[in-house]
Amino acid sequence: MSVMTVYGDSISGNCHKVKFVAERLNLPFRWVETSVLKKETRTPEFLALNPVGQVPFVMLADGRGLAQSNAIMLHLAHGSTLIPDEPYERALMMQWLFWEQYSHETVIAVRRFHRHYLKKADSEIEPSLLPRGEKVLTLMNDHLANRAYFVGELLTLADIALVAYTRFSHQAGFDLKQWPQVRAWVARVEKDLGVESALP
Amino acid sequence: MSVMTVYGDSISGNCHKVKFVAERLNLPFRWVETSVLKKETRTPEFLALNPVGQVPFVMLADGRGLAQSNAIMLHLAHGSTLIPDEPYERALMMQWLFWEQYSHETVIAVRRFHRHYLKKADSEIEPSLLPRGEKVLTLMNDHLANRAYFVGELLTLADIALVAYTRFSHQAGFDLKQWPQVRAWVARVEKDLGVESALP
Repeated sequence: MSVMTVYGDSISGNCHKVKFVAERLNLPFRWVETSVLKKETRTPEFLALNPVGQVPFVMLADGRGLAQSNAIMLHLAHGSTLIPDEPYERALMMQWLFWEQYSHETVIAVRRFHRHYLKKADSEIEPSLLPRGEKVLTLMNDHLANRAYFVGELLTLADIALVAYTRFSHQAGFDLKQWPQVRAWVARVEKDLGVESALP
Repeated sequence: MSVMTVYGDSISGNCHKVKFVAERLNLPFRWVETSVLKKETRTPEFLALNPVGQVPFVMLADGRGLAQSNAIMLHLAHGSTLIPDEPYERALMMQWLFWEQYSHETVIAVRRFHRHYLKKADSEIEPSLLPRGEKVLTLMNDHLANRAYFVGELLTLADIALVAYTRFSHQAGFDLKQWPQVRAWVARVEKDLGVESALP
C-alpha cells in the first residue's frame, strides 16, 4: 500500500502544520527531508514535482501532488472537527488562514529565518519587521482575551496554522511574556497536539 | 430586509473579487466606498469593524463581519459551481488561492500600487518586484498552456482571485503580450464575469 509522502523541512513551521494535522488524524505518511537552506527545493527533480519550488509539498497516496501548507491541511482535515461544520465559523477559520499567510508568516517567520538561521544582526534585518511583528502579536493577544481558541470552542486549523511560527517567536526576537494570552494559547495548542513545547 | 454590506475600495483587485462573486451569484449587496489612499481603513470607526484595517470587509445580512478577500469569496460561493465538488480539484483551487495571496498579490498588486497610484518611478520601486513578477506570470503562462481555467474545466474562485490583479498587469509595468496564454485567459475570465476588459 502506498502512503502519502510529505516533502518538508524540519525547521519550517509551514511544514510542521502538515505533520501536526497528519499525526492528529492518524494519517500515515512518509517524511522526505528537503532543506531550503541547502537549496534542495530548487533542484530540477524537486521543481518537476512543485514548479513553485516550496515546501511543504505532498504526494498523496494516489500519486497526485498538492502544495501550499494551508491548502494541504484543509485537504487532509476534510470532514474532521479541525474544520468547523457551521458555515460562519468555517468562514472565520478561512479568514485566519489567509491572514496567517499574508500578515503573520511574512513577518514572524521571515524575521526568525534572518535572525535565527541566517544569523543576521538585528541591524541587518528589514527594520519594519519589528513593529509589524509587535502589531501581529498584539492583535492575536487582544483576540484571545476571552477565547481559548481562535474560532469557536474547539481546536481548528486556524490555531494550527497560527501556532506553527508563533511558538518560535523568541527566535524571531519577540518575548511572548509581553503577550500573555498568546503565550498561554501556544502552550494549550502544543498540549492538544501532543508536541513538546518550543516555548523558552 | 437587510442586505450584505461590502466595504471596498474601487481601485483594489482584492475588493473586486467580492463584487465579481456577488454579481455572478446574484447576491444583493450595498457597496460602501472605503479608500485606502485616503486612510479610510484606519479610522476608529473602521478599525472597530475590522481591527486588521483592511478592505474588503463584509457585514453579512445577519450582521456578522468577515474579512480577507479569499475567505469572503469562499463563504459567498459555498455550494456553487465556483467551488469544485471533487475533493482534489477543491484542494487545487485552495492551493491557488493561497499562492495568489502569498506570491502573486504581494508582487503584482504591490508594484501596481507603487507605480500607478503612488506614481513612483521604476527606480524608486523595490527592484526585486520586477523579476518576481516575471516569474509569477511565466508560471501562470506555463500552467495555462493546455488549460482554459486554473482548475478543472470550469471557472472557479482560483480564476477570480488570480484575474483580479493580473488584468491590471500593465499598470504594474508588465506587458501581457509577453505571456499570451495569460492574456487570453484574462480575456476569457472577464467575458465569463461579464465585466469590461481592463486589458490595454
